[in-house]
Amino acid sequence: MPLRPNRPLPLATPAGVEVLTRILTQGPIPRVEIARRTRLSQAAVTKAVAPLIEAGFVTDQPVAVPADEAAEGRAELGIGRPVSPLTVVADSISVIGLKVTPTDLIGVTTDFRAGIRAVRHQPLTDTSAEAVLARLADLATELIGTLDDPTDPAGPLIGIGVAVSGDVDARHGVVRDSPFMGWRDVPVASLLAEKLQMPVVVSNDVRALTVAEHWFGVGVDADSFAVVTIGSGVGCGLYINGEVVSGAHGVSGELGHLPLAPGDLVCTCGRRGCVETVASSDAILARVRETTGRPELDLSGAIELAHSGDEHAREAFDRAGEVIGSALAAMVNLVGPELVVIAGEGVADYDLYDQRMRQAFGEHAFGAAGDCRLMLRSHTFDDWARGAAATVIRSYVRGEPPFHR
Amino acid sequence: MPLRPNRPLPLATPAGVEVLTRILTQGPIPRVEIARRTRLSQAAVTKAVAPLIEAGFVTDQPVAVPADEAAEGRAELGIGRPVSPLTVVADSISVIGLKVTPTDLIGVTTDFRAGIRAVRHQPLTDTSAEAVLARLADLATELIGTLDDPTDPAGPLIGIGVAVSGDVDARHGVVRDSPFMGWRDVPVASLLAEKLQMPVVVSNDVRALTVAEHWFGVGVDADSFAVVTIGSGVGCGLYINGEVVSGAHGVSGELGHLPLAPGDLVCTCGRRGCVETVASSDAILARVRETTGRPELDLSGAIELAHSGDEHAREAFDRAGEVIGSALAAMVNLVGPELVVIAGEGVADYDLYDQRMRQAFGEHAFGAAGDCRLMLRSHTFDDWARGAAATVIRSYVRGEPPFHR
Ligand SMILES: [Zn+2]
Ligand SMILES: [Zn+2]
Repeated sequence: MPLRPNRPLPLATPAGVEVLTRILTQGPIPRVEIARRTRLSQAAVTKAVAPLIEAGFVTDQPVAVPADEAAEGRAELGIGRPVSPLTVVADSISVIGLKVTPTDLIGVTTDFRAGIRAVRHQPLTDTSAEAVLARLADLATELIGTLDDPTDPAGPLIGIGVAVSGDVDARHGVVRDSPFMGWRDVPVASLLAEKLQMPVVVSNDVRALTVAEHWFGVGVDADSFAVVTIGSGVGCGLYINGEVVSGAHGVSGELGHLPLAPGDLVCTCGRRGCVETVASSDAILARVRETTGRPELDLSGAIELAHSGDEHAREAFDRAGEVIGSALAAMVNLVGPELVVIAGEGVADYDLYDQRMRQAFGEHAFGAAGDCRLMLRSHTFDDWARGAAATVIRSYVRGEPPFHR
Repeated sequence: MPLRPNRPLPLATPAGVEVLTRILTQGPIPRVEIARRTRLSQAAVTKAVAPLIEAGFVTDQPVAVPADEAAEGRAELGIGRPVSPLTVVADSISVIGLKVTPTDLIGVTTDFRAGIRAVRHQPLTDTSAEAVLARLADLATELIGTLDDPTDPAGPLIGIGVAVSGDVDARHGVVRDSPFMGWRDVPVASLLAEKLQMPVVVSNDVRALTVAEHWFGVGVDADSFAVVTIGSGVGCGLYINGEVVSGAHGVSGELGHLPLAPGDLVCTCGRRGCVETVASSDAILARVRETTGRPELDLSGAIELAHSGDEHAREAFDRAGEVIGSALAAMVNLVGPELVVIAGEGVADYDLYDQRMRQAFGEHAFGAAGDCRLMLRSHTFDDWARGAAATVIRSYVRGEPPFHR
């Protein structure tokens, strides 16, 4: 198996980490602008950047600058002095991101900026932890093979990220409880790292998606945001006060398990009245089957029925929309984000609950909290896998476990 | 009126603000420890501290150090070199904090470390904004008088904080909507500043309490926490990722307006199913009056009745406890704080809903999110006023409006 060596970053100080993070997430960016945004001296920025350029992670090769920016740059730097914004060398490293679902594994390779290079899907028949770990290793090996294309050279692979739904202890790489997978206390990171001889980062899938949005998505422009995923589960990632919210005990953003639904409904998590008891795709399907008396329907059949105007089918989606809207209102009333990105498998059929969701949101959002933008985002399984890759990139840059400096 | 001049802080850089914040909130603290925690160089710390000592805001006079810490300090600094931890000079400034309720105004003077020096209460008969502002000015003037005691000299008054429940635009000093006071769009800061010729900071009361906990309370030791207030309203302040959560549009922590109660109940805010419709003290009283058929009861009568074992009265408190517990679970499921401080006027009668609250919390807290500590805090109206003072201290140190540098 052509495993490539890890490639250590020449970062010795917190200032170095901050400078590289700015270049990675906000580049191309001039040194003077990094100094301004980080409040570091220009000398400190230059000192941090030099070894990164030397080692090939960052470049300051002059790039074509649009006329407006060039004029602005001249004003700032003095006419005649060239503007040399700093950019990350995307192909200086490669990363693999894997998303686990009960029916499929999805894997991607990305570059340093979380740009997707290759995608592979693999159906899953056995969801036991042992079987899934074997399949994950196969999928990773297949993806590692794609990095060897001589016509499109990729950087050395530095690590593998895995995204799983549920309660994940990212610090120790353990899936503590994943109801969808039926897993409890599975040490995914250590098991997979042993198989592949590679650093492995394991995260809650919605958290991983939020990390990707923070560094490579809406987080670049928004001071605070929430990512809400709707589909087989209802999840939420929060970015507040300059960082993704991780929860003191590793749990946060459990929008799908707010007690906003009727108390007689029992959730897959065992609790009563969770949002997911009426808003998950399984719950919607169960409701449509029950009210229409058609137990043979599958989800696409239920969606079709609702689109055709069937009242029972529409009611199930309305009910889901109403609870999701209340949950969104509860979340914005508590944390007041600037922006809410609604993403997930259910977005394709969003029109079925959009109206009721917005209505319930409007009814329960408190004062100016309701002024946050609701942004609909079409979203694929590849994005989940890319989120897993983003968690690896973040740990690598920050020198957090399993990356040590 | 003996108004004292503002006393500007000699802080020119963000590093200076950070250094003073550490001394204020974590002092006594040695320079070397400030450097370690802020990641600033020791030279930068010394440079920031010098003008603060010179101007009398900070002192490095040697203080008695416990044997353990002294040994530690020696190991770090080299034996023989004296440890001179830095402390804020508490009496270098004075601050006034005012809390507005529909029935009373509460005012305190504090020192630089939010230590209360004097307390004054004033009953309120007219809650119109005009009348309240006149009374606030009177109360502030009375408190200013207490600063002139020659036997206990206080520092110069630097500003006045006002805490009001509801939706407050702290940046512009405007109470946008306070249902309890019946106020809408009242520019409290500018009106009071004009009357008193003093910088005025206006905040949501729970936010102010959270600022006080952040700088001078549990926040000194906890990485994340929530302050939940229970009484005539139900509020929540959040401290996450190193800062109090303010909400992109100025609204956050509206725990009392999560839609967790029955949808047929209408809240004072006009929405349906808010937590406060069953959990505010008014809601509890209304319920006891209704179910016992005793419209003449007041709150202490209802509490007495519940303590005596009356089933109808107990049911009203049980119902409140259950919804508060669900709301606490919703909050920890979303943000996962390390610690939840439960404070407020209702705490004295906490035993009446404690059990049902904890039960509902346990039923709905998701996984490890439920591992957060629930800490009961006895709490007086003076603490609200102290919170208002803390907001002034924070704005003063940070050079935020109305304090300009
Ligand atoms: Zn659940
Ligand atoms: Zn309400």
